[in-house]
Amino acid sequence: MSLTEHPHPASCPVSRSGFSRRSFLTRLGLVSATAAVGMTAACSDTGSGDTAGDATGDAADPVVAFDGVHQAGIETPVQANNSTVAFTLRDGVDATGIQRLLRIWTGDARRLCAGETALADLEPELSADPARLTITCGFGRGLFRAAGIDDRAPDWLEPLPAFTGDQLDARWGDRDLVLQICGDDRTTVSHALRVLVRGGADYARPSWTQEGFLDVPVGEDGTPGTSRNLFGFKDGTVNPRTDAEFAEQVWIGTEATDPAHVDGTCLIIRRVAFDMPLWEAADRPTREVAMGRTIVEGAPLTGTEEFDEPDLDAIGADGLPVIDQHSHIALATVHDGDERQRMLRRGYNYDLPVSASSADGLVDADLIALSDTGLIFTCFQPDPRNAFIPVQRRLSEGDRLNEWITHTGSAVFFVPPGTADGEYWGQALFA
Amino acid sequence: MSLTEHPHPASCPVSRSGFSRRSFLTRLGLVSATAAVGMTAACSDTGSGDTAGDATGDAADPVVAFDGVHQAGIETPVQANNSTVAFTLRDGVDATGIQRLLRIWTGDARRLCAGETALADLEPELSADPARLTITCGFGRGLFRAAGIDDRAPDWLEPLPAFTGDQLDARWGDRDLVLQICGDDRTTVSHALRVLVRGGADYARPSWTQEGFLDVPVGEDGTPGTSRNLFGFKDGTVNPRTDAEFAEQVWIGTEATDPAHVDGTCLIIRRVAFDMPLWEAADRPTREVAMGRTIVEGAPLTGTEEFDEPDLDAIGADGLPVIDQHSHIALATVHDGDERQRMLRRGYNYDLPVSASSADGLVDADLIALSDTGLIFTCFQPDPRNAFIPVQRRLSEGDRLNEWITHTGSAVFFVPPGTADGEYWGQALFA
Repeated sequence: MSLTEHPHPASCPVSRSGFSRRSFLTRLGLVSATAAVGMTAACSDTGSGDTAGDATGDAADPVVAFDGVHQAGIETPVQANNSTVAFTLRDGVDATGIQRLLRIWTGDARRLCAGETALADLEPELSADPARLTITCGFGRGLFRAAGIDDRAPDWLEPLPAFTGDQLDARWGDRDLVLQICGDDRTTVSHALRVLVRGGADYARPSWTQEGFLDVPVGEDGTPGTSRNLFGFKDGTVNPRTDAEFAEQVWIGTEATDPAHVDGTCLIIRRVAFDMPLWEAADRPTREVAMGRTIVEGAPLTGTEEFDEPDLDAIGADGLPVIDQHSHIALATVHDGDERQRMLRRGYNYDLPVSASSADGLVDADLIALSDTGLIFTCFQPDPRNAFIPVQRRLSEGDRLNEWITHTGSAVFFVPPGTADGEYWGQALFA
Repeated sequence: MSLTEHPHPASCPVSRSGFSRRSFLTRLGLVSATAAVGMTAACSDTGSGDTAGDATGDAADPVVAFDGVHQAGIETPVQANNSTVAFTLRDGVDATGIQRLLRIWTGDARRLCAGETALADLEPELSADPARLTITCGFGRGLFRAAGIDDRAPDWLEPLPAFTGDQLDARWGDRDLVLQICGDDRTTVSHALRVLVRGGADYARPSWTQEGFLDVPVGEDGTPGTSRNLFGFKDGTVNPRTDAEFAEQVWIGTEATDPAHVDGTCLIIRRVAFDMPLWEAADRPTREVAMGRTIVEGAPLTGTEEFDEPDLDAIGADGLPVIDQHSHIALATVHDGDERQRMLRRGYNYDLPVSASSADGLVDADLIALSDTGLIFTCFQPDPRNAFIPVQRRLSEGDRLNEWITHTGSAVFFVPPGTADGEYWGQALFA
């Protein structure tokens, strides 16, 4: 959908508009005596009381369920905004401190996502409308070490191997913890981030923030469409969509070495810089050959519709493969029939003002040739050794898109399973 | 409204969804041969052909009219995102070059806001859904000088006087030109910015970018509500809303010294840093006294509803004024019956990741005490000498909020009148 074209949900939903917010805040005990005068009973039974949808649910429901078998923010259809923040544990924080931190964060995240007031939050109006807020937590290897439970970390939880062409900046690298905060309203996302940073301040400090956005298309039938990256291509066409596909391609599952991993997943965040001036020098046919898909539809060059299966063996009238062997899709797709190479891609575009991210000295430089634009490539899978690593190895060596992209950041996290009400993230690991 | 609660506009609007985008791009001649197969005729008569609303129009209409008596993006109800970019003219660019630049920019802006393809734009899909995109252009004094028409600049077009407490950074200061790009979709805004920076590259280079966001509330009746700043208060309650109010408080009008100014306005952009840690140490009653309004409703402390008129003379049971004389609203309101002190406030929140806007050296510093949060205070008025300057003088000297805020940037621009189809911004100044 475009942000201006959401179907109107049930009447009197949670919103920042007059009556619905007022009734909502009344239930939270936040309406001042003066404000309560003039209230009407309209809609007083709706608002966030609205039983939460499921994680994969209705894009029009402002509340995405926080608790569940899996954490929200993974199956959830993409929201318009994403602030992902990695944290470093403070010196001396041990298992007890980590558990306290996770208890504080999980409780506050649960409240924020429901449109309720987080602990010690004096500005609850800023997130009264959750606008599909999700907060997803991941653990780096450092957390397991600091907690003295390194033996309970997944084997794969270590820095990714080097790939050809990587120009990694440690500034976007592995950290002890990560929070992926996504939502359709930037004020809500900003406020949630502030509440969590402050709430965890005694235990962890933010080390990097990657801030991204997406268009959020919706089809005529209300189903989510595929967002575009800043090269103009649809991104995420081959993602899993059914529960069975998520079970195979995302959740660790019962083959886990530790039962506390079963409903978790592996989160990889790669910062990928786009060379926009060079891209802008490439014409549309060149771009389509490099990608292996059409720009408008996102169809494979052997098809007409986005979800048509690519035919990598098709030969054109010129005797050449229709889909170039070094196109992005030819290399990114499953090879050797190994279905474990599938994964969920849930990346976000970034586009930072050069003037704000640069030293003052750059203000008068020629900024036209510069841009700080790209993709916060984010993927989820059961085990990166079977998915991201082999796929990225192929891409790093042969992808035609490499002419225009550079990987500048790399981080891996274990995402613990979802929670039941009252539980905290990763609780089973500390049992 | 919340972004998830827009009423659905007319059927088959411009969007990034399948059929409507496809038919839209077909008319632009952008559908590739393969993609065209499988097209249906559904909705082929709608899309952006959708006659544009007026500038003050329906929040659900994805197209805000570009041409008109006044530029769009001023009366337009606020959109969720704003990238405002100030430019410096390249050395040697004179009246001819400036006219070329304005012709290029106006043409591209007109196309982008209609969801059409800008010149030399190879990624038109990224802004196919305008999502209420508006692009508003302002001129600094430097443009008038470079064009050799300094005598046609408004008298007031010069740096603002110093105010008590200012800690101005030239990085956010006066420049030759400014583009305020607002819209509900960040991909569209990002792409429009890129197209305009590139299109004007031979004539001007970006010097600063201020990137902001707002919640976009809408009442049950579909009228826009008042967004909140990151202190949690509604911001903009006393704004003009009727044409008559805009005529008095925003447009320069027939008293202009130059007929080319009549339908223009003065744009002031002040960057205002919020001290969040200190704010978070203040309780809600303290905040309400400092503001003079309630947090939940935004009502004056002498009233119950947001739009109640404040009673600055009211005395409470304790013998003290109900609205403190040094509260923000007591000082910001019209004094001495001088109605010229009214203006349109159209500011945006900013909240930059500290890690991204800081040197690497800060990564391990204690970031908790830091934040880079505040308000891109933006206002429009006929003449700042009658509006912003006297009001800000009072505020800078006495506003209780000064304990938590610091002005760090200041820039003033003349916003030329709106355009007719085919005209460029400020054309009458070059006649």
